[in-house]
Amino acid sequence: MLSFSVSGSYTDLYEITMGEVAFLQNRQELPVIFDYFFRTVPAKGGYAVFAGLQDVLDALAGLQFTSEDIAFLRDRHFDAAYLDYLQRFKFRGRVYAVREGEVIFPHCPVLRVEGSLFETQLVETLLLNLVNFQSLVATKASRMRQVAGERILSDFGFRRAHGPGGILAARAAVIGGFQSTSNVYAAELYGLEASGTMAHAFIESYGSELDSFRAFSASRPQGCVFLVDTYDTLKSGVPNAITAAKEMEVQGHRALGIRLDSGDLAYLASQARRMLDEAGLPYMKIAASNQLDELVIRSLLEQEAPIDIFGVGTKLVTGHPDAAFDGVYKMALVASRPTMKLSETPSKGTLPGVKQVRRVFDKDGRFFGADVILLEGQGGAPVPMMYHPFQPGKSLDIGHLRQEPLLQLVMEEGEPLHPTYPLSEVAAYCASRLSLLPAEYKRFENPHRYKVGLSKRLLQLRDETRERYNHF
Amino acid sequence: MLSFSVSGSYTDLYEITMGEVAFLQNRQELPVIFDYFFRTVPAKGGYAVFAGLQDVLDALAGLQFTSEDIAFLRDRHFDAAYLDYLQRFKFRGRVYAVREGEVIFPHCPVLRVEGSLFETQLVETLLLNLVNFQSLVATKASRMRQVAGERILSDFGFRRAHGPGGILAARAAVIGGFQSTSNVYAAELYGLEASGTMAHAFIESYGSELDSFRAFSASRPQGCVFLVDTYDTLKSGVPNAITAAKEMEVQGHRALGIRLDSGDLAYLASQARRMLDEAGLPYMKIAASNQLDELVIRSLLEQEAPIDIFGVGTKLVTGHPDAAFDGVYKMALVASRPTMKLSETPSKGTLPGVKQVRRVFDKDGRFFGADVILLEGQGGAPVPMMYHPFQPGKSLDIGHLRQEPLLQLVMEEGEPLHPTYPLSEVAAYCASRLSLLPAEYKRFENPHRYKVGLSKRLLQLRDETRERYNHF
Repeated sequence: MLSFSVSGSYTDLYEITMGEVAFLQNRQELPVIFDYFFRTVPAKGGYAVFAGLQDVLDALAGLQFTSEDIAFLRDRHFDAAYLDYLQRFKFRGRVYAVREGEVIFPHCPVLRVEGSLFETQLVETLLLNLVNFQSLVATKASRMRQVAGERILSDFGFRRAHGPGGILAARAAVIGGFQSTSNVYAAELYGLEASGTMAHAFIESYGSELDSFRAFSASRPQGCVFLVDTYDTLKSGVPNAITAAKEMEVQGHRALGIRLDSGDLAYLASQARRMLDEAGLPYMKIAASNQLDELVIRSLLEQEAPIDIFGVGTKLVTGHPDAAFDGVYKMALVASRPTMKLSETPSKGTLPGVKQVRRVFDKDGRFFGADVILLEGQGGAPVPMMYHPFQPGKSLDIGHLRQEPLLQLVMEEGEPLHPTYPLSEVAAYCASRLSLLPAEYKRFENPHRYKVGLSKRLLQLRDETRERYNHF
Repeated sequence: MLSFSVSGSYTDLYEITMGEVAFLQNRQELPVIFDYFFRTVPAKGGYAVFAGLQDVLDALAGLQFTSEDIAFLRDRHFDAAYLDYLQRFKFRGRVYAVREGEVIFPHCPVLRVEGSLFETQLVETLLLNLVNFQSLVATKASRMRQVAGERILSDFGFRRAHGPGGILAARAAVIGGFQSTSNVYAAELYGLEASGTMAHAFIESYGSELDSFRAFSASRPQGCVFLVDTYDTLKSGVPNAITAAKEMEVQGHRALGIRLDSGDLAYLASQARRMLDEAGLPYMKIAASNQLDELVIRSLLEQEAPIDIFGVGTKLVTGHPDAAFDGVYKMALVASRPTMKLSETPSKGTLPGVKQVRRVFDKDGRFFGADVILLEGQGGAPVPMMYHPFQPGKSLDIGHLRQEPLLQLVMEEGEPLHPTYPLSEVAAYCASRLSLLPAEYKRFENPHRYKVGLSKRLLQLRDETRERYNHF
């Protein structure tokens, strides 16, 4: 069984190399803070969904170097005392994060790691690897949930996924609003619902389509979804499914439905629905698969295609069209000194200091369309005004609006502070937060830009820090 | 440590459901043959690289259902006798495949699984999951190797990879022509070279760039590559790297080089090269990273950017621009009966029967630009003529040319027949095969289309099988 306990080697070599330098200079315990944030919303959309937190916390809580890891590094001539240090290593940092499933926006620090220089740097790659991909897929899944309404969405993507990455995709899809996955391992590991129908090869192995349907229903009278496009959907598949379903009724069973996997899904679904209804099988559902994504699903439903279940593969698990989420992990404080990364492109600069993020709500309790980043220790009073991070003088009055802090302490001394949320709860949180986000931020075409601003004190700290580097 | 032994649950639920139906009808041992092939070349290119075979063979050889798998299925009301069957299951099939690292073309069966209906169907998802992704990345990597010449290519993509999929990406990149990976776990698991430099945060943690370089060189005088873009590449980074490198010389060491990670890489590399040379440091290499792919690398080298090492991340490990490889696994024979999948789109139909693939060579020993698919048992004589699979009457005379069979028996009774090839050997095979492929098939823009045809007997079998289904 593929295990998801990750060791100290689940990282990039340079984290370990830099750790050695710090260790040899006795700087490994310097107190340091890193922020995780992203810059670009996937699929040119208006929001992203934060996912992967629980896997990160699990990984950090159990993180250690195995004897294989140590042997590997010894072969590469790492310092013997440093290797001892690695062998005894346990992550003892503190983690603040927004809730998993939160709707997030560019440039906002949504996760913060506080700890020693060694441990905070070591976990960079691990954290990015687990959070970037899951946030990508959860975001993609949430877009399909938006258009699918109450219909069922199931992940069918494992065969086109990036190896075992597909297991994380199945988890993230559920956070974004999917009901189930085809993949058994993911279902086992994360307690997801597993689902699936039958393959063309199964039908071919019988020679007769009807025989194959009868065989399936005889063995699995519950959960029977007939795949109807092996020979000819409307001339053969649907009629045979009807025959098999009527025979099941005689035995006191009900077929669940049929699955369309090729051709014009809108046309075939309408025709199949009519045939099923005319045969007195209105309870049989129609499932569809084949190169689906949020745009195809929307188009199918605009055509009123009577599809009840969508099986989505490639474009879900690869996070089409981006395939990557550009989250980064940047140092914000070292030995009490605020620090930042400069860049010739201002929007690629980072924010120094220990920060909190507050979401601003409108008077109806929905998202106002703005997050403000402030310094921890500014107190609980509303931030009166938020400032555009890159356009001097541009500001927005938010003092009269409710402001909700998003970053919460979730790990202390390397131990998680909360039991694991059931994934259904994470998904429900995501859905509830998305319901508070006005439609103009959720539309696929040119969505409204959600504002992210800085408090005055943070703006000042950033400009002072930048001055300190003599850099403009 | 993340383990790559995969269990019976590393699959889609429907494989297990269909297996139960077969078992309950006592059809589970029917002899069956499946073919793996793909239809679309990634990145609109002219060829693909076959990768992932060794992982598949390892997975098949060790495949079993764990007690957790069985418990999971028992909770889902699978038949008790079937669960016993699963508990005792071991894959005992036969596998034929082209060599890992082979250059492959659409529609050619490059892997064939023979065995019982149960086992051949069960492994579909596992096989597709491992081979599709690695073939995608190996193909992408080979395109970068084409333009990079003798320069070093290193995988830096783990932070943007699809979770643990990044480990397979590192392996596949090496097959396609990369030298090393940043990821320690992949290096450990597959015996790859691990490489890496330093991060911006490391430099920031010192406040002074020069101090950070000195610290690094003091601790790691071998393997010192200075990251020079934290503050200002030409005004600060390169001069500080020169200072540190000159100090190293006094100690009898040589810095390896510098790394550029932002800005105009062509301009900065030229300027930095000049500065290093003028400082008497001609041995210092220049490494570059930041959103590289084969097109950017080609452009940089066309501008004669003096870059020696390319660190490639996102676009390598996500297989940009496709993110998925469309390999499929289709039944070709069941209980001695040739079978095929029909489709209204002829090019999506499959080929029945037990097949071999031969590569045709020209008189100079290079690839002629054609593979012919024939039936096993046609004998060893050259196929005189190959026929276009979809355009009747279109044929090509190949009888006078050398024809090399590509599919070899690699697993018998579930046991691999060969020891694992070292990955360096797989990579060398890939390189040697690509060197035999004429340039017109390798170019990025509108490459020449490699021909794949059928022998006359296979064409006849396909048409007869199709007739048998009464389908045109």
